[in-house]
Amino acid sequence: MQDLQDELRAIVGADQVFVGADIDDRYKIDLTKKYASQPGYVVRPATAEQVSAVVKLAHATGTPVTPLSGRTGLVGGGVVTDGGIVLSLERMNRILDVDITSMTMTVEAGCILQTVQEAAEAQNAFLPLDLGARGSAMIGGVIATNAGGNRVVRWGMMRDMVIGLEVVLADGTIISSLTKMLKDNAGYNWKHLLIGSEGTLGIVTRAVLRLRPFPASSQTSIVAVNSFEDVITLLRQLESGLSGRLSSFELMWGNFYQCISEANLPRRPRPLPLGSPFYALVEAMGSNPADDAAQFEREMEKVMASGLVTNAVIATSERERQGLWAVREELEAGLATYFPFLSYDVSMALAEMPRFVDAATANLHRRYSNARIMFYGHAGDGNLHAIASIGETLTPDIRISIDSAIFEAVREVGGSIAAEHGIGQSRAAFLSWTRSPEELQLMRAIKAALDPRNILNPGKWPEIG
Amino acid sequence: MQDLQDELRAIVGADQVFVGADIDDRYKIDLTKKYASQPGYVVRPATAEQVSAVVKLAHATGTPVTPLSGRTGLVGGGVVTDGGIVLSLERMNRILDVDITSMTMTVEAGCILQTVQEAAEAQNAFLPLDLGARGSAMIGGVIATNAGGNRVVRWGMMRDMVIGLEVVLADGTIISSLTKMLKDNAGYNWKHLLIGSEGTLGIVTRAVLRLRPFPASSQTSIVAVNSFEDVITLLRQLESGLSGRLSSFELMWGNFYQCISEANLPRRPRPLPLGSPFYALVEAMGSNPADDAAQFEREMEKVMASGLVTNAVIATSERERQGLWAVREELEAGLATYFPFLSYDVSMALAEMPRFVDAATANLHRRYSNARIMFYGHAGDGNLHAIASIGETLTPDIRISIDSAIFEAVREVGGSIAAEHGIGQSRAAFLSWTRSPEELQLMRAIKAALDPRNILNPGKWPEIG
Repeated sequence: MQDLQDELRAIVGADQVFVGADIDDRYKIDLTKKYASQPGYVVRPATAEQVSAVVKLAHATGTPVTPLSGRTGLVGGGVVTDGGIVLSLERMNRILDVDITSMTMTVEAGCILQTVQEAAEAQNAFLPLDLGARGSAMIGGVIATNAGGNRVVRWGMMRDMVIGLEVVLADGTIISSLTKMLKDNAGYNWKHLLIGSEGTLGIVTRAVLRLRPFPASSQTSIVAVNSFEDVITLLRQLESGLSGRLSSFELMWGNFYQCISEANLPRRPRPLPLGSPFYALVEAMGSNPADDAAQFEREMEKVMASGLVTNAVIATSERERQGLWAVREELEAGLATYFPFLSYDVSMALAEMPRFVDAATANLHRRYSNARIMFYGHAGDGNLHAIASIGETLTPDIRISIDSAIFEAVREVGGSIAAEHGIGQSRAAFLSWTRSPEELQLMRAIKAALDPRNILNPGKWPEIG
Repeated sequence: MQDLQDELRAIVGADQVFVGADIDDRYKIDLTKKYASQPGYVVRPATAEQVSAVVKLAHATGTPVTPLSGRTGLVGGGVVTDGGIVLSLERMNRILDVDITSMTMTVEAGCILQTVQEAAEAQNAFLPLDLGARGSAMIGGVIATNAGGNRVVRWGMMRDMVIGLEVVLADGTIISSLTKMLKDNAGYNWKHLLIGSEGTLGIVTRAVLRLRPFPASSQTSIVAVNSFEDVITLLRQLESGLSGRLSSFELMWGNFYQCISEANLPRRPRPLPLGSPFYALVEAMGSNPADDAAQFEREMEKVMASGLVTNAVIATSERERQGLWAVREELEAGLATYFPFLSYDVSMALAEMPRFVDAATANLHRRYSNARIMFYGHAGDGNLHAIASIGETLTPDIRISIDSAIFEAVREVGGSIAAEHGIGQSRAAFLSWTRSPEELQLMRAIKAALDPRNILNPGKWPEIG
């Protein structure tokens, strides 16, 4: 397709179109190394107008287009169909505006999350979204996937931080609404429809994000808890007792805590002894360091005195804080002991978590007697992650079998197979397990209306389009 | 249409279908008394299945259906096309579940907001949405219009409190997703598309709402402020200084404060003397009454000491608290002095408010030298209300002229003509003033895909469908 190549070069410049052997591996294979393809073209536009022109061309020629930003997705959503166009937003990485009067910032889709966080912090403002991949995830991707992370319990998911949005639709139309208004009930809220649609309805090019005051204080603790009932009581008591300052409530089942802290022992002391069925990492943020710390300690004393918490350690320095978070975030060495493994990201009503954990574990052991599984996650949001291993190579059939074991349990408790990581390719076959035929039909109608030629990130959700 | 009448009776029962002279006036004319019609049928279903059957019938016969719940809308959105079906949800008023483990409640669309608030409170839980019409607004309506109100600055709008949703689509399909999950990234978020669509894409029948811990304490103050710059600084300082506990920040321009407090003098003392350009009602909520009150007083002392606030009164009892809120909520007597008047609900970046107020006032005076206008609203959300009067009868032409004066100013500052009240009929002609042709085209595509026969609340947004 020499013609298409020439036309793409005319749009973005000859040096920003790559084909054949000139395509870097990073555009061919995803982070998980499970999904790969042979893109026809990699195109790196510099403006929304260039994105629009590329998409118009794709629309006219029926060429698949997959937008790509920070490549930190975990479900294979950013791998293009063979021969299609990878539209990388990495060059659109300008922070256009930090407006501390309106408490907003306007950024291009290719900005790295951490860069955006730091630009806000430089003005004493705060973008609450935070996740492990902060150093490489880009804003376009976190919007397209409605990312979650560690502070959802207080500030919500990415959709709660997007005020204004600019996207390019499947026919190349640029829809630009880069407003700084928190409230806008004038017509349909297309922004919320586009957020989380994983590049299948439009391509995010710019966004206006909501900022908060930068927290002057944070308090962090790891606590040991004896039962799931106590976990729930603890969460509710802290939500209330900290007057809404609770910003993270990360739950770890005992075997997860053991696995990660064990593997990190050469570099990190273990914050609390083993032996408890649950550990929770608790963090609060506020603006009055002295008062906040006193309140936090008082609440921790209360939950210790009542027996809700059987052991606790509170960080007294930023270094100690990082040490506590390491149990939740420095997972590499621990996960290596489960290799090869599959990871899951599911959600449910909080009260259903024990039933889900029991069912998923039983389903898995029924299939594979050597299986190991451990659970952790953002319990404050009803969001669990799981790591499953059967101690042998994961063939496609085995993957499907393990997936089925976990998702059967999700279905049983009325949960979701994708809490924050999205559907991508790896969950697509299971979409109907927690979405009704009526919901899928509605999604199909939306997709058909917005992308009738099915060129935007096609092949990902076969049930939708 | 005797046939249609018989079929409707077969669905909901003969005693729940009203025609002709049997139709009560409340189904014919809206709260503002500006919009009226002659419905062909009033139908009061008791279940989602009945709603579905009614809509299927309407779909088959091409009959317009307008859903109606608490009839507190201010923009004429709940008045059916002449001869169409008013589908009243008032009988679907059961609270199905208050789940304090998952902190959710499941309710039918016809539940009155205040009833829902009280049912939550009885379990020491809290539905933060609050607005003046709480005693008659129903859940279906506050979801369909994405209502806002007095506590958005902390807890967001209605969409932020809806976790699960059940709607009936234009062809009668029931889409039911009454889940209790805070996070669900499995496919398109159709809930957010339906929320705020004002009955034009589907009819809300049930919802799962997110609850919060019931605040054990609240602190309320009215303060006087000298300039809008100081208003912004004050808001940001309180957001930060109260560690996120700020739950209301209601701004009143001097003439609004004078008008309302003057009219209420026979029943209410005036909390602060006249003469200040701005007054703000500030409220914080928390869980530790003693600490919270001390923190609030400390922050108020700070803003007094720095001169940000020139005068302040803090409520010391619930009765005093109600007295302070009266300046913002007991508007009837004051508004009567502006009668006949038009009211507005607009939003913009906070920093743009003074420019908007100046432009709107100038635009209005240029057209009507006797005009009076006063501003107030949820400044913490960038949301202003305005009351405008020209001291004479408001003919349709004059209405359009006054609307134009205000909305020209909105357009000038890149704001929205509908922050929280919605579009309904009264704003429909101006939708294109703050939505681009591309946005309107996208909305049309969505409407055509979901309601191809245009039977759901038709005639409201001529530019959409």
